[in-house]
Amino acid sequence: MKLYDLELSGNCYKVRLFLALIEQPYTLCPVDFLGGEHKNEASIKRNVFGEIPVLVDGDLTLRDSQAILVYLARKFDRTDWFPTTPVDEAKVVQWLMIAESEIARGPNDARLHDKFGYELDVDLARTKSTRILTILNEHLSDRDWLELDRPTIADLACFPYIALSHEGSVSLEPYPALQNWIDRIKALPHFVSMPAL
Amino acid sequence: MKLYDLELSGNCYKVRLFLALIEQPYTLCPVDFLGGEHKNEASIKRNVFGEIPVLVDGDLTLRDSQAILVYLARKFDRTDWFPTTPVDEAKVVQWLMIAESEIARGPNDARLHDKFGYELDVDLARTKSTRILTILNEHLSDRDWLELDRPTIADLACFPYIALSHEGSVSLEPYPALQNWIDRIKALPHFVSMPAL
Repeated sequence: MKLYDLELSGNCYKVRLFLALIEQPYTLCPVDFLGGEHKNEASIKRNVFGEIPVLVDGDLTLRDSQAILVYLARKFDRTDWFPTTPVDEAKVVQWLMIAESEIARGPNDARLHDKFGYELDVDLARTKSTRILTILNEHLSDRDWLELDRPTIADLACFPYIALSHEGSVSLEPYPALQNWIDRIKALPHFVSMPAL
Repeated sequence: MKLYDLELSGNCYKVRLFLALIEQPYTLCPVDFLGGEHKNEASIKRNVFGEIPVLVDGDLTLRDSQAILVYLARKFDRTDWFPTTPVDEAKVVQWLMIAESEIARGPNDARLHDKFGYELDVDLARTKSTRILTILNEHLSDRDWLELDRPTIADLACFPYIALSHEGSVSLEPYPALQNWIDRIKALPHFVSMPAL
């Protein structure tokens, strides 16, 4: 199993984190993102969207960090991290979608602007950050995990760009429940970190 | 099973379409979107994000159209529409994420601007529309369905806002493979339509 990866990418990191937590070996293939390698011919053949991470497992070439989390949970039969009962599965999937939308267009975009110089509407990204962080903080004010009273891939999907908010000039100080949730994730057995976390 | 719904929403429509295709009954609860009902207290209690659709099924209150498609496929054991084998499931999930991101920020945003007066960067939405429509057209140039050689919830998740592109001043004329795919979806048994489709 090969993971095409960028160390500084929160989306790549969530895959590395899950593989570490479930103690599964893989081959890391670093992609020279700043050198544009993710847009070269071989990369586009793996992922037409020119993005990382990409997971290659035998004949399967899979893009999108959320889809990769789903795949790994299923491949290794980790229903503790991603249940198969319809109600519980759907509850987790809701948050995968939040990672793909509200978090991507909030704290992730703010960080892309500040850290990587992306030209985007950073004020809008900060406004969206405040909204999603406020909602998540409220949601986590009376529970330890996003769903099911245990860590799932919902938490892993949402975690990196929230924990990296400060790299987009978004402070987590107003959100104590989010800070506690981050600490709980960091305390999971076999947790691995990434730069700036 | 109750669906909180707006007739003009492509996200609500994809749920109505799936329920029609698999011939499952439900109670439609129209939400007065233009009157702001989706932001009132009862609506926010169902979905803190103040968006529709929302599906209520017994104790479960579920937001996000993609998550609802997943839930319905699992609840009614429709592995034809959403497989449970890890590789096939992940291939479908990839496109659910495209519906949640590239399509939402492309043709959906362009339509929100043109049809509903949303204040957003419509030039950016049109640029993103061209990109995702070009990629999808190429992807569908040598296959009938997004994955697995059969219709799945991947197709249903992506279909509405692509088929409604013209309402965001985005023409599908340059994309013949997409047009053919739309026609194939419209020809599915028990297909139902929506305004402007």
